[in-house]
Amino acid sequence: MERVAIIGASMTQFGQRDAWIRELLAEAGEACLDDAGVSPLDLDHLYVSNMASGEFEGQTGVPNALAHDLGALPAYTQRIDQTSSSGGAGIYAAWQSVASGASDLTLLVGGEKMTHETTAEATDVIASLTHPVEYKHGLTLPSFAGLTARRYLHEYDAPRESLAKVAVKNHRNGVDNPHAQFRKEVDVETVMESPIVADPLRLYDFCPITDGSAALLFCPESEAKQYTDEYTVVSGIGGATDTHVVHERDDPTVMGAAVESSELAYNMAEREPEDIDVAELHDMFTILEFLQSEAVGFFEQGEGWKAVEEGVTDRDGDLPINTSGGLKSKGHPLGASGVAQAYELHQQLLGNAGKRQVDAEVALACNVGGFGNCVITTIMEQA
Amino acid sequence: MERVAIIGASMTQFGQRDAWIRELLAEAGEACLDDAGVSPLDLDHLYVSNMASGEFEGQTGVPNALAHDLGALPAYTQRIDQTSSSGGAGIYAAWQSVASGASDLTLLVGGEKMTHETTAEATDVIASLTHPVEYKHGLTLPSFAGLTARRYLHEYDAPRESLAKVAVKNHRNGVDNPHAQFRKEVDVETVMESPIVADPLRLYDFCPITDGSAALLFCPESEAKQYTDEYTVVSGIGGATDTHVVHERDDPTVMGAAVESSELAYNMAEREPEDIDVAELHDMFTILEFLQSEAVGFFEQGEGWKAVEEGVTDRDGDLPINTSGGLKSKGHPLGASGVAQAYELHQQLLGNAGKRQVDAEVALACNVGGFGNCVITTIMEQA
Repeated sequence: MERVAIIGASMTQFGQRDAWIRELLAEAGEACLDDAGVSPLDLDHLYVSNMASGEFEGQTGVPNALAHDLGALPAYTQRIDQTSSSGGAGIYAAWQSVASGASDLTLLVGGEKMTHETTAEATDVIASLTHPVEYKHGLTLPSFAGLTARRYLHEYDAPRESLAKVAVKNHRNGVDNPHAQFRKEVDVETVMESPIVADPLRLYDFCPITDGSAALLFCPESEAKQYTDEYTVVSGIGGATDTHVVHERDDPTVMGAAVESSELAYNMAEREPEDIDVAELHDMFTILEFLQSEAVGFFEQGEGWKAVEEGVTDRDGDLPINTSGGLKSKGHPLGASGVAQAYELHQQLLGNAGKRQVDAEVALACNVGGFGNCVITTIMEQA
Repeated sequence: MERVAIIGASMTQFGQRDAWIRELLAEAGEACLDDAGVSPLDLDHLYVSNMASGEFEGQTGVPNALAHDLGALPAYTQRIDQTSSSGGAGIYAAWQSVASGASDLTLLVGGEKMTHETTAEATDVIASLTHPVEYKHGLTLPSFAGLTARRYLHEYDAPRESLAKVAVKNHRNGVDNPHAQFRKEVDVETVMESPIVADPLRLYDFCPITDGSAALLFCPESEAKQYTDEYTVVSGIGGATDTHVVHERDDPTVMGAAVESSELAYNMAEREPEDIDVAELHDMFTILEFLQSEAVGFFEQGEGWKAVEEGVTDRDGDLPINTSGGLKSKGHPLGASGVAQAYELHQQLLGNAGKRQVDAEVALACNVGGFGNCVITTIMEQA
């Protein structure tokens, strides 16, 4: 099977943006085409990762709008939704379009416009992905995070401060990311004294509500060099689903879909966890970074917190995680997040990550929908 | 490139259903797995075509819910939205998943729950796909249909009655479709005297608001026989996009995305319009059947109306169109419609269409999003 190359990448400023979803998508799309030096007229497929433009803005059909705004007609367009992992699902869809031979050049743009809603309104739209029975009992995603964090700390004798240290690390990384929503360091005390949201988790354990977009341009590896010498390859990718009803899971501290999807990705790439040099994990809540770092095989179950305590996942550690600042400090515009993870890894693999640069030849991204309801794992490598 | 086989198909009763989107999707999904004799545990990909469960029901994440309801965990799940052509886009996505080698067995379920909304509310959700400037001026999809019909009748000297005859033909076909929403014949007088909706189009020129779902099961052609002897193949498929702003199109009577997408599909299948024995066209409005029958090359531009007048597209004509009853009498649950088109052609190619049966070895479906904003054309053949 021929591998799929990423020949261009972009992301916009994340944060509170005075722009609607159409404008955000066009901004990242144009920047990505510029990055690769490709004309929109050469695109044959244009995919959009977006969860809820209809609910957030009353605007649907955004892929068609984007084709219009970029001048990419008559490229085939489609929206991919997998809730908060729509970006990763878009990467898988774009990969399939190229690997199947349907497309020679697919542009993927992921984005979401959210900050015009109150946090409660946005949280409620996101919570519409939960099972109606759990939703009715007030179990939004932050509630699940609180319950799971409590269980994890108890089960593995982890100190509450270890969760705070995820936020501290990712904020520190975010300082050097010009696209990040928050570019300021926080200390453990600030996290531990911030308002309780879902006990034991506090405000600084949560990612913010964010506007933003990101884009990637895909082609068959054999055709990449005709566009650019600066490209990376998707060597492995896989997706999996966990129970819709969260309380049906055997062990709430094991993120099953991350286990399954990473196995698929490792198999395709013929790689093992030990081969990964840098990773972007979906730290929508601090606890999720522990769960994923264990589920994808970086650390033994219940040991992810120790890696953070010991600095293993710091930028100068053995396995840097979330060099971009993660969702925690970079922000989490749902449809964009998975695409922006790959943007960061693309820059790291190409040596273009500036102050955030680490030594990396093989990289992994884990993008999570719902509360682990669906997960995409992607392995990217230097060409 | 290996072809992709369809080894199972189902559709539910279309109409006003006392069931929510989750139940409708599960009903079609289970029936399709039963049709093929396949266990849900054997699925590796599960795709859902749906435009607006979030807007219509406040429920998102329906693919994850469906994986739960079918017992298909940990199959990869994803939602495909391309507005009213979400079903056709789902077929293309499923085709890509199998053709790329990502999946050996993909179940696609398309569905929509709409009738709990008023016609005005449902029309408004659909109209959210239009360009904001046209939307602001009240240009919903029915308005575009009225304007285009007036232009077509003027340009090609077509009698108003020719449009009515599309409705008459498709209602006649729908009588023999047990899944159709309307199973009663109408005559030209009834259509011509029904209330005006968007002059010159009247109530019977429009498809209804509908609940329903449909499903297809895909695998590589080389593996089809291990499941069943009753399968068909997708020999060609293509998609294309037209302007988001409808008034920017050079000639409103030419459906550009249907021209482009059908060329792609014919090329992949190594077929020509003359090879097609039966077709399902997206007759959301009667005028659209004329436009598509010309755009995909069945008839010269401006001559589609003559074919209907002369009975060419009747069930006993040279090129039967919408033997299922079309969207007009079968109904149009957005995400299901494109999937249900393929369901009808699958039955026709297998000789399982009962009273609707025509003589067919090669079939074509044209599924339209928005007002021709995006179109998927699929060519299916006997194995």
